[in-house]
Amino acid sequence: MEVYKKEKIENVCIFGGTHGNELSGVYLVRNWLKDGALVQRGSFSTHLVIANPRAVDTCRRYIDRDLNRCYGKGTLGESTNAESPYETKRAQELYHRYLSGAPPDGTTADFLIDLHNTSSAAGNCIIIPYNASPVVLQVCVELIQRLESLFVRVLVLTEQGTVESTAGSCKNTIGVEIGPQHHGTLKTKVYDDMSLIVTTTLDILDQINKGELFPERQLEVYSIHRRYDYPRDEDGQLNGTLHPDFEEKDWQPLKNGDNILRTLDGADIRLENETETVYPCFVGEAAYYEKGLAFWTTLKTILKVEKLPLDD
Amino acid sequence: MEVYKKEKIENVCIFGGTHGNELSGVYLVRNWLKDGALVQRGSFSTHLVIANPRAVDTCRRYIDRDLNRCYGKGTLGESTNAESPYETKRAQELYHRYLSGAPPDGTTADFLIDLHNTSSAAGNCIIIPYNASPVVLQVCVELIQRLESLFVRVLVLTEQGTVESTAGSCKNTIGVEIGPQHHGTLKTKVYDDMSLIVTTTLDILDQINKGELFPERQLEVYSIHRRYDYPRDEDGQLNGTLHPDFEEKDWQPLKNGDNILRTLDGADIRLENETETVYPCFVGEAAYYEKGLAFWTTLKTILKVEKLPLDD
Repeated sequence: MEVYKKEKIENVCIFGGTHGNELSGVYLVRNWLKDGALVQRGSFSTHLVIANPRAVDTCRRYIDRDLNRCYGKGTLGESTNAESPYETKRAQELYHRYLSGAPPDGTTADFLIDLHNTSSAAGNCIIIPYNASPVVLQVCVELIQRLESLFVRVLVLTEQGTVESTAGSCKNTIGVEIGPQHHGTLKTKVYDDMSLIVTTTLDILDQINKGELFPERQLEVYSIHRRYDYPRDEDGQLNGTLHPDFEEKDWQPLKNGDNILRTLDGADIRLENETETVYPCFVGEAAYYEKGLAFWTTLKTILKVEKLPLDD
Repeated sequence: MEVYKKEKIENVCIFGGTHGNELSGVYLVRNWLKDGALVQRGSFSTHLVIANPRAVDTCRRYIDRDLNRCYGKGTLGESTNAESPYETKRAQELYHRYLSGAPPDGTTADFLIDLHNTSSAAGNCIIIPYNASPVVLQVCVELIQRLESLFVRVLVLTEQGTVESTAGSCKNTIGVEIGPQHHGTLKTKVYDDMSLIVTTTLDILDQINKGELFPERQLEVYSIHRRYDYPRDEDGQLNGTLHPDFEEKDWQPLKNGDNILRTLDGADIRLENETETVYPCFVGEAAYYEKGLAFWTTLKTILKVEKLPLDD
């Protein structure tokens, strides 16, 4: 009897190592592959995947290009050959095998959990698409409530951020992004928190599958607003850093006039041109230096979360 | 009139980017190459070198192997060809050009300052050879005294650690190692502290060259004692982390029974088999995961520092 057809989750994929030096997800997936009891549930199948095995082997973010920017239609549709970037080919392989595949060799995931770490002090963060489904939004509400001591925050990607990353690659997707953890290292607290967020998510999905009622309600989220880069010289080299006042100030309210950056010769740079209080995140993330990104600002907003089961 | 022949410093080399993702030294050297006023002194020539330019370009620790393990006689004497590791060739080039060269194309440095960052909470650390010269030891005493607010500590390498690294490549060498700073990132305070340590070192060398008196005295140092690795499984994969109690506890006294590590399934691992109080350093350094090293323990000892000028 499939009463709740619209929400039915049959296959859940868990990706660790989309970035090969973000070790919490790498080790969780490796260890669950040895003993999967913690991630099996009665109402769906769980698929565990090391997303970028070559990057994991060399403990680097990626080999040729950032795998988490390879899920746009253009990249997934590219014809490839031996010279193509490894991650272009790997995204296509992951997409056709796990995200849009068919039995006997493939699976179409109904829910994707993509595991990440950040070097920034972003804490426990759930990253969702700009057009997140009711299932994803209910999962977020429940994670915040059930894991109160973990201070879970929800970050909403832009449309562009959604379509090129794993966030847009499956009808229901969450990224689990936890820091601070230096890339290439492993911390107990981060590992344990990530494990708890994943297993709690699976519990919630199992309850959704069983038709339990999740009422209509509201969800406070942080929506990506603007990007800020470091001061740079004409060659693109750094000419400044985060302002010392601003280091590790993820999610702290920021307004025009607050110090954000400092040039190497000591001049303060202050926030300007924002029209309201903003909330910065991924402040100083190491992997974003090459992307010309010192931090994002976000706006705090409230989303309406539809009840589950949905009306037919 | 060369009265103080034994100590006379004619050429000082400053290496930034021995590890290409340790950015304080990379940016200091780059910026001093544009304007060297801060690092020029009357009594010697200062040579500024990006030690591993290919690693700097890709913002990685190294390309083929760790450059700071390439200064042993074996590696410096290897015959190389196009297939040889880049860093083997680069160490030979640096050695013959800057550390044992002769005019007009080469220089033999009398003092080498090698700039490093650590992801660990080691603070401001001067690394010296096991057989440090009186000039190096006097520089350390003066740095500790003149830069009191920087809490400079001195770490003494083992003989093996000395001979394979830059520490053994020149008659007088200091490594300046400052953290915490995530590899591939740049922090204002670390940049400024490193700049101050270098310019103060140059001031001291200038005074030594001028024959100023530095009395005989004592220097408290931390001498490398033992290495500890993370718990690992039969494949060498991590099976544990630093113990949460022990994270960021560089230089804090540690004794048998103290928690140091934790397995991923939650078992505490305590220090044992040390015979006295030890002082850990580079606790959790990201670049040491691949070396099978979670932290060093050190012993606190006192060295006698000969006066300068030395007696003839």
